Amino acid sequence: MNTYVYDVFELSFHGRTSGNPFTDYEIRAGFTGPETDVQLSGFYDGDGVYKVRFMPEKAGTYHYEVSGNFCDEATEQKQPLAGSFTVEENPDQSMHGKVQVADSYYLAYADGTPYYSIGTTCYAWATQNMELQEQTLDTLSKSSFNKIRFCIFPKFYRYNEHEPIMYPYERGEQRGIDWSLKENNINLPFHTDKEILDITDFDCFRFNTEYYRLLDQRIAQLCALGIEADIILFHPYDKWGFGNMTMECNELYLRYVTARFGAYSNVWWSMANEYDLTVKTAEQWETLAKVVIDNDPYHHMISIHNCIDFYDYKKEWITHCSMQRQDVYKCTEYTDEYLRRFGKPVVWDEIAYEGNINMGWGNITGEELVRRFWEASLRGGYAGHGETYENENDILWWSHGGVLHGNSEPRFAFMKQILEQTPGHYLKYVRRSFDEVVGVPYHSNARDWDVFQEVPFYDDYEVHYFGGTRPAFREFDFKEDEIFHVEIIDTWNMTVTDAGNHSGYTRINLPGTLYMAIRIRRVK
Amino acid sequence: MNTYVYDVFELSFHGRTSGNPFTDYEIRAGFTGPETDVQLSGFYDGDGVYKVRFMPEKAGTYHYEVSGNFCDEATEQKQPLAGSFTVEENPDQSMHGKVQVADSYYLAYADGTPYYSIGTTCYAWATQNMELQEQTLDTLSKSSFNKIRFCIFPKFYRYNEHEPIMYPYERGEQRGIDWSLKENNINLPFHTDKEILDITDFDCFRFNTEYYRLLDQRIAQLCALGIEADIILFHPYDKWGFGNMTMECNELYLRYVTARFGAYSNVWWSMANEYDLTVKTAEQWETLAKVVIDNDPYHHMISIHNCIDFYDYKKEWITHCSMQRQDVYKCTEYTDEYLRRFGKPVVWDEIAYEGNINMGWGNITGEELVRRFWEASLRGGYAGHGETYENENDILWWSHGGVLHGNSEPRFAFMKQILEQTPGHYLKYVRRSFDEVVGVPYHSNARDWDVFQEVPFYDDYEVHYFGGTRPAFREFDFKEDEIFHVEIIDTWNMTVTDAGNHSGYTRINLPGTLYMAIRIRRVK
Repeated sequence: MNTYVYDVFELSFHGRTSGNPFTDYEIRAGFTGPETDVQLSGFYDGDGVYKVRFMPEKAGTYHYEVSGNFCDEATEQKQPLAGSFTVEENPDQSMHGKVQVADSYYLAYADGTPYYSIGTTCYAWATQNMELQEQTLDTLSKSSFNKIRFCIFPKFYRYNEHEPIMYPYERGEQRGIDWSLKENNINLPFHTDKEILDITDFDCFRFNTEYYRLLDQRIAQLCALGIEADIILFHPYDKWGFGNMTMECNELYLRYVTARFGAYSNVWWSMANEYDLTVKTAEQWETLAKVVIDNDPYHHMISIHNCIDFYDYKKEWITHCSMQRQDVYKCTEYTDEYLRRFGKPVVWDEIAYEGNINMGWGNITGEELVRRFWEASLRGGYAGHGETYENENDILWWSHGGVLHGNSEPRFAFMKQILEQTPGHYLKYVRRSFDEVVGVPYHSNARDWDVFQEVPFYDDYEVHYFGGTRPAFREFDFKEDEIFHVEIIDTWNMTVTDAGNHSGYTRINLPGTLYMAIRIRRVK
Repeated sequence: MNTYVYDVFELSFHGRTSGNPFTDYEIRAGFTGPETDVQLSGFYDGDGVYKVRFMPEKAGTYHYEVSGNFCDEATEQKQPLAGSFTVEENPDQSMHGKVQVADSYYLAYADGTPYYSIGTTCYAWATQNMELQEQTLDTLSKSSFNKIRFCIFPKFYRYNEHEPIMYPYERGEQRGIDWSLKENNINLPFHTDKEILDITDFDCFRFNTEYYRLLDQRIAQLCALGIEADIILFHPYDKWGFGNMTMECNELYLRYVTARFGAYSNVWWSMANEYDLTVKTAEQWETLAKVVIDNDPYHHMISIHNCIDFYDYKKEWITHCSMQRQDVYKCTEYTDEYLRRFGKPVVWDEIAYEGNINMGWGNITGEELVRRFWEASLRGGYAGHGETYENENDILWWSHGGVLHGNSEPRFAFMKQILEQTPGHYLKYVRRSFDEVVGVPYHSNARDWDVFQEVPFYDDYEVHYFGGTRPAFREFDFKEDEIFHVEIIDTWNMTVTDAGNHSGYTRINLPGTLYMAIRIRRVK
């Protein structure tokens, strides 16, 4: 089997099984090759098998050398555990490598292709029954989503009161959970009428490798679909104790997860969902983040998601702002402000979900969610979707995956098409008329207009979006000697209408409905 | 003719006509009666006629005594100009007297009837042609509006480029206008294709009494319709020089206007529309406000309206906050915050108008405007309407009056009906679930819930409004031994649906559409 750039290259060895292989033995490997010289930790995958995973990012010849005390007698005799392999360019044109920060504020794949993040969230999809998981993948494959947030640990919360198909740890004598820690504030809505099992017999020093093999598979499947796996490492919606583990077990877990998943090009690390609802302290978060950073030579995207207070996104280890809105009325409208404040890409991972449930974070309209995406995009950021429609099976996309019931998703594909047409890839916000959001290319010299002394000066490319207003026309004051091509974009009905070339004073008529935009492009 | 409480009692005398009667002579009168002892200035009404107007607020016998140097020889011989008159209770049940502050944060008529302000704005309606003015009155008479903002001075602005039917000053040698003052920043949108006349020959020491007599009539007609006249004394949309008058003329004007209109029970003084766009300084505004205060023994409602920066509403002379929104996304959502900050009633006089014009202050939907009204109302404030639909006659309600083209107005009548059912009259905001706005009676002991430790405690009366969300159900955690009557209010379709009596855990199903509310009333 050939090895390609951005694929997972895996070494596998038999090793010792006595004691607790997850803690008693270790496997490491050094990889050298084109622009590459890394030391990687491997992991124990059960049944006496130890693995090291590596992601090559350049074509060429690589060498590896394995070390560690994991070897059993048979493996010992094969020493040195070293070898070479050749990596070829990936024949799959859709493989672009890991996502990383571009131009300080934006995102691009390793090969330079711009990444327009259209996120979604299915927190617990990977612990649902297999049929549902397959359905989720099918839905994703037909969608515009190119990032999904989900948890490693199972989720306990309203609509999430059934047990997961498997657990991340083996059962046995309870170890590594400290129930004396303040109980996680899971903010569980009242009136759960389901039986809440009291399951506390997990040994948090022994991973359930079957659980993690399934996650391997899911991450790989997402990768094949071109979808980033924004993996949530910790979260507060817990009843099993995984949110109350000792720091020793937290660190063991992070080393395991980073060794296991780090070689997938589509992995992002989300230290937490709603970190501020967990029992962990600020100091502990910093310690835990360092464990991830130290075990991730690829520097995958990494952030931490809030409930109320933003984490300090200025911390060096944080690649981007992973934000939940702080205000019920305004969120992505602050994108440009946060870009300036934090100097990093702004990814709105939670801005209320399309749906109709009782909770205020899950009952906005599809129209409003799409509006929030446009606000984020034209201001230079990225937004995320989620869906929470009540249904008789209690299968809500936001947590379980399955199928979509709403009407927002197709609009993101349309938006992405428009964004992909941006000269220079990225948009930034400039202030013009106060009721419109105007995005212009990041590298342009476009400047804000003064509110009261508007000096019309148009960039070569501008998208004017009217999200909450519905003017029946808009005026442009082009110079007499310049020509602009004008298009009317209906962001909801997903149409682009040619409105011709114009010079001098120009009135562009609009249908007077919500969610319209006007795009102008300089012809001369 | 009988004199009734809250009516205008007018004294009229012939007097001197030589020189400039507006500045050279004065007429004053003292009125004593039940709880009344006031000195009033009168005004010159042209053709040798001097008037003093008085508003009695109690039934009983009053005495007056007139003074001043206005008397011509004939009048002089009738001295003393004194007399008595009897005031009876007003037979018109709809006459409630002037609006004033109640319970610090709210509004009520002098007779104690709560006043639920449903404002509208027709800035220049009183300077349009007579046919249009009559049409405006007809529209108002069929509407739910009980306050209208309009200017005394004519308005020059986009859609307002024709001359008024009359001018507030006589033509002649230009006096009292200082063109060296920085030109008013009228923020006139570009591309006016109408001829702009340069009319600067006004004598600002001589009022055009015909102009003011028409205003008398309009204010009286509004009063008969139960509509407060929120009179805008100064504004920046000017080309004639009325915005650039000397302080001497500004003060002369205010003394004239207050003497003339102060006896109408429905008068409010708005020192300015968008004070911060005029040429007047902060010190000048204070001086001018004092002129009004000193000449208004009735203490009519008085405030000053902003473009960008709020005036300092903590100033003692200001009775209420007359606000234009400062943010394109949020405005009336801040009502409770401003009530706390300023300690005075909050009247949102400009929160964007229903319409479809190019300007961002005039192109929101009727739905959104109504939503903003509910936000204001349930948080303890008041909101104002305006309408700016483009039409072939360029007659826009916001400035010219005429007829309404939108769909918001009927919803205000419905909202007002709901508000009138509030026990104790007034609502205040309490924080509950973060996606709802909950109003409870002002005098109740209702308290905010802690976001994370929600302790369900319901007031005897609560209105839960879901403006921007559309939950398909809402849960209430009534105690087992209490009973609440529940109603579902569709604020847009204007229906109230009985949802029965409930105890203990209660799930109320909703249609899952926007703009719904739930009202609960304790039965036991």
